[in-house]
Amino acid sequence: MNIFIVYYHPEPKSFNGALRDTAVTTLESQGYTVRVSDLHAQDFSPISGRHNFTTVQNENYFKQQLEEIHATESGGFSEGIETELKNLEWCDLMIWQFPLWWFGLPAPLKGWVDRVFAMGRTYGNGKFYQDGVFKGKRAMLSLTTGGPEAAYLPDGFNGDIMGILRPIHRGMLAFVGFDVLPPHIAYGPAHLDDSERTQLLADYEQRLLKLETEQSLTIGTY
Amino acid sequence: MNIFIVYYHPEPKSFNGALRDTAVTTLESQGYTVRVSDLHAQDFSPISGRHNFTTVQNENYFKQQLEEIHATESGGFSEGIETELKNLEWCDLMIWQFPLWWFGLPAPLKGWVDRVFAMGRTYGNGKFYQDGVFKGKRAMLSLTTGGPEAAYLPDGFNGDIMGILRPIHRGMLAFVGFDVLPPHIAYGPAHLDDSERTQLLADYEQRLLKLETEQSLTIGTY
Repeated sequence: MNIFIVYYHPEPKSFNGALRDTAVTTLESQGYTVRVSDLHAQDFSPISGRHNFTTVQNENYFKQQLEEIHATESGGFSEGIETELKNLEWCDLMIWQFPLWWFGLPAPLKGWVDRVFAMGRTYGNGKFYQDGVFKGKRAMLSLTTGGPEAAYLPDGFNGDIMGILRPIHRGMLAFVGFDVLPPHIAYGPAHLDDSERTQLLADYEQRLLKLETEQSLTIGTY
Repeated sequence: MNIFIVYYHPEPKSFNGALRDTAVTTLESQGYTVRVSDLHAQDFSPISGRHNFTTVQNENYFKQQLEEIHATESGGFSEGIETELKNLEWCDLMIWQFPLWWFGLPAPLKGWVDRVFAMGRTYGNGKFYQDGVFKGKRAMLSLTTGGPEAAYLPDGFNGDIMGILRPIHRGMLAFVGFDVLPPHIAYGPAHLDDSERTQLLADYEQRLLKLETEQSLTIGTY
């Protein structure tokens, strides 16, 4: 199994970094091949623009999707975007490792989606959702939160975590064809002590060991 | 009334740009004072980091919220962040003008939130939601979509638009205390002809003329 981890956290010593390391070690120990895009270390720009491309479809008006279709047809993605596209196409399973910021992806990871999920190459022309380009591949969010689990229950302080993640699960991952696995959520690690955090890493390891046979969520339930 | 528009689109001639111009012209004609942050024109970086601050709370480990609290106490925000914070504090009504990308904010606007909504200054210490720092102020999303309205109905291709916007409405705007107005949505302007787009701008103008007395959404319904 080929596994592609897209990781973002601005502090390399963060708990998100430890979760990423746990994933790499555990998955490689199972004989899987793992690639990691570390958006902070790569200084990956979240800003879309003409620099996504080596080609130009319309020099007078920048319409990103038309530039993406043109680049798809003419091999015109910039080197950095092409590398990420090849990773997407290579993997059987994709994991996004990130801290939940403002009920969403940190901007660097959102910008990775804005730039890499290119029309023509990753969706479009009838290829969406169940007929998506990445049909047959699976994806999983692995995230940390600031608050405790109780805050993310349907009647909690922030409301149901599945509703919060829905635009990511459905609008990004399922939209381009991925089957979505249940998210792996480490609640409030900043408020835990070292032994509790170590336990969370052990829990993640156990989850990862069962990935091969894990069932994806049913469309319509996320 | 002081109105703060945060605007992002990578193409200055875009329909989002026309919506922004309509807002500025219409609102100023009513005697309101309008400020605009144009994130593309300002080349605003979406990436959070130590450059958000002139002060340092912990040089060995970057924990953004702790740096934010320290900067709040010591006047330590960088000039660019301080300007945006002052606009937030100045306004009575905030409008975000953006294209919906991947069921969410474009990364430059998400990064503006990640960097500007700083702990200590904009939330925390019991100040959240109904007791939020910006209690009494109102906010409205003004957005464009790629698809038609039918795609964003509860049983549509993409599902209910209010569910898609919920993490923004609740997790960003309401979280820091804003009362949330119903969103203003221009569906699929790229697929319309000029006269239809002109009509959408006229519709927006009419909406804007009634903003002063418009009711905000009821908490729990968004």
